[in-house]
Amino acid sequence: MTDFDSKIMQRCLELAKKGQGKTSPNPLVGSVIVKDGKIIGEGYHPLIGKPHAEIFALQEAGLNAENATIYVNLEPCNHYGRTPPCTESLIKAKVKQVIVGMIDPDSRVSGSGIKRLMEAGIDVKVGIAEDACLKLNEGFIHRVKYQRPFGIFKYAMTLDGKIATNTGHSQWITSSTSRNFVHHLRSSCDAIIVGGNTVRRDNPQLTTHGVTSHNPLRVIMTKTLDLPLNCQLWDVKQAKTVIFTLPQSNSMVKSQLLAQGVEIIEIEEITPSIVMNNLYQRGLNTVLWECGGNLASQAITSGNIQKVYAFIAPKIIGGENAPTPIGNLNINNMNEAFLLKNSEIQKIGDDFLIESYLI
Amino acid sequence: MTDFDSKIMQRCLELAKKGQGKTSPNPLVGSVIVKDGKIIGEGYHPLIGKPHAEIFALQEAGLNAENATIYVNLEPCNHYGRTPPCTESLIKAKVKQVIVGMIDPDSRVSGSGIKRLMEAGIDVKVGIAEDACLKLNEGFIHRVKYQRPFGIFKYAMTLDGKIATNTGHSQWITSSTSRNFVHHLRSSCDAIIVGGNTVRRDNPQLTTHGVTSHNPLRVIMTKTLDLPLNCQLWDVKQAKTVIFTLPQSNSMVKSQLLAQGVEIIEIEEITPSIVMNNLYQRGLNTVLWECGGNLASQAITSGNIQKVYAFIAPKIIGGENAPTPIGNLNINNMNEAFLLKNSEIQKIGDDFLIESYLI
Repeated sequence: MTDFDSKIMQRCLELAKKGQGKTSPNPLVGSVIVKDGKIIGEGYHPLIGKPHAEIFALQEAGLNAENATIYVNLEPCNHYGRTPPCTESLIKAKVKQVIVGMIDPDSRVSGSGIKRLMEAGIDVKVGIAEDACLKLNEGFIHRVKYQRPFGIFKYAMTLDGKIATNTGHSQWITSSTSRNFVHHLRSSCDAIIVGGNTVRRDNPQLTTHGVTSHNPLRVIMTKTLDLPLNCQLWDVKQAKTVIFTLPQSNSMVKSQLLAQGVEIIEIEEITPSIVMNNLYQRGLNTVLWECGGNLASQAITSGNIQKVYAFIAPKIIGGENAPTPIGNLNINNMNEAFLLKNSEIQKIGDDFLIESYLI
Repeated sequence: MTDFDSKIMQRCLELAKKGQGKTSPNPLVGSVIVKDGKIIGEGYHPLIGKPHAEIFALQEAGLNAENATIYVNLEPCNHYGRTPPCTESLIKAKVKQVIVGMIDPDSRVSGSGIKRLMEAGIDVKVGIAEDACLKLNEGFIHRVKYQRPFGIFKYAMTLDGKIATNTGHSQWITSSTSRNFVHHLRSSCDAIIVGGNTVRRDNPQLTTHGVTSHNPLRVIMTKTLDLPLNCQLWDVKQAKTVIFTLPQSNSMVKSQLLAQGVEIIEIEEITPSIVMNNLYQRGLNTVLWECGGNLASQAITSGNIQKVYAFIAPKIIGGENAPTPIGNLNINNMNEAFLLKNSEIQKIGDDFLIESYLI
């Protein structure tokens, strides 16, 4: 891998990110065409159903694509899906070389795209800036591998580990800089899940507050549906809201919310796995859990959380009964702890953010 | 300030650190003498009662000190204390220039050392690498300003804010790399304080485990003195132990521990301020609180903690009743939180360490 290859692949990832929150169940893909050391075409996959990144890049390059090198962060597709295979377009455009970030984990592609290109006499290089490519599409990869959306648990706590005071007051723990970061995080996700308690206590909006045009689907898990009628979440003009609840839950609230355009799904049992499976069926890649400790512990023990974003504010509030981020996990001995790996930390305003993966 | 000045002052600080844990109530001081761009003498204050840093550096330089420049992180003393004033030694040695990191906050010196040198025709520069100089002696400075030792609260928690599991199990939260770091931290302190609960639950050693020759004084606050007779803390050959307890506390334990060489101080009321005042009277600069949440909250609200070292391990253990670092502070609203400033983070092995100051 040359520095130039790496730099151009970073550009592909930058382009790919423009599709964040809008491509599911498709991956995030960006593509750049280079000839004589100059970029002659760029593209990214903007939205499910729209053409793939390579096609936009080829369109921009036009006939100039002949004998050029095309960079793309994910192996070009080789099957007829919602759009025709990109491999055929690349062959038809007579590109000389294809530089690929990572193999597509989707079994319908997985190496066959590269094989097809090589058979057509095109030079193919694979694995350029692979770690960054894998990270950008971790949601898509998890979905394809495990038939379940990628779960991210986000919380904000004080330096002494509390998510609210003794009385439940929590606005705000982190600075506005961190909260703005969360709006961007939401915009990169397909859905946000909270429980009934969070709705009752915080009356949250769970939107991106305008930082991007995309708002994720807002999902509420509530057995009782005993929720106030004047919640911000019922304003479905801002973003769609879906509630998972029991068939016998509060029927008065049910009819009112249905009339306001809230989607209500009645199921006999409400577990993180059942909800995540429903979201998988809807084609979602990445789901952000912004719930309290009880629901978080259920989501963790059932394997529905893969990544943790822990915001830590330089504040101390104390409180023996003040709530902490995660409820009971039935762990008695320290060596039974859930371990995390690949932890990274960054400073966001005055706060710290630890980003880490559950092993 | 030139790069050279700054580099030499860093060397002074390195030398000064060799005295960590051993100079109280004196400050940590290092000194370097330079002539024609070369170091011709170095010294540091090694131990209370021993000569000051400048004297050792002058001894090494010998007659060569004439017309040389001497660097020292703290203003040279100008009074007769345990040793004669350093200013007179510098004048006698005919140094040309004195470069000082920071003014001495001790009112017996505070500018008078610099004044004396200037009156003797010596060129004096002040404030070189001042921030680093202030930080190294933050314990000494606090002691002098407030007539109280500088309090550091150290704790280790999981990424979900717990210091032990539901059942109280806590060995170990952090990795051996972090625990080794704590041994070094202890060696830079004059005393460690814990409460009776920590002694009963963890039977800690509270030593530096041999990383340096210095062990801080081990201090226990216990009203009842209902403590096991076979604690590691009673082995006073390793390090001295002092207990603060009520006059009416367990007399059987009292006589046994006295026989083993443990110091016992009986007082009518046992508060962080009373204990810290006693440690001030003993001449201590820096005290490390390694206590549980209840004692920590008392120490914080009474103003006996200035700095926090929070180790955060990439682990999740959950537990609604699992203990957290700090007990009740009577805070109901987030905007009543104790704020911290100048937070810094570093990775220690797989763990994170946030170092921060209470405002």
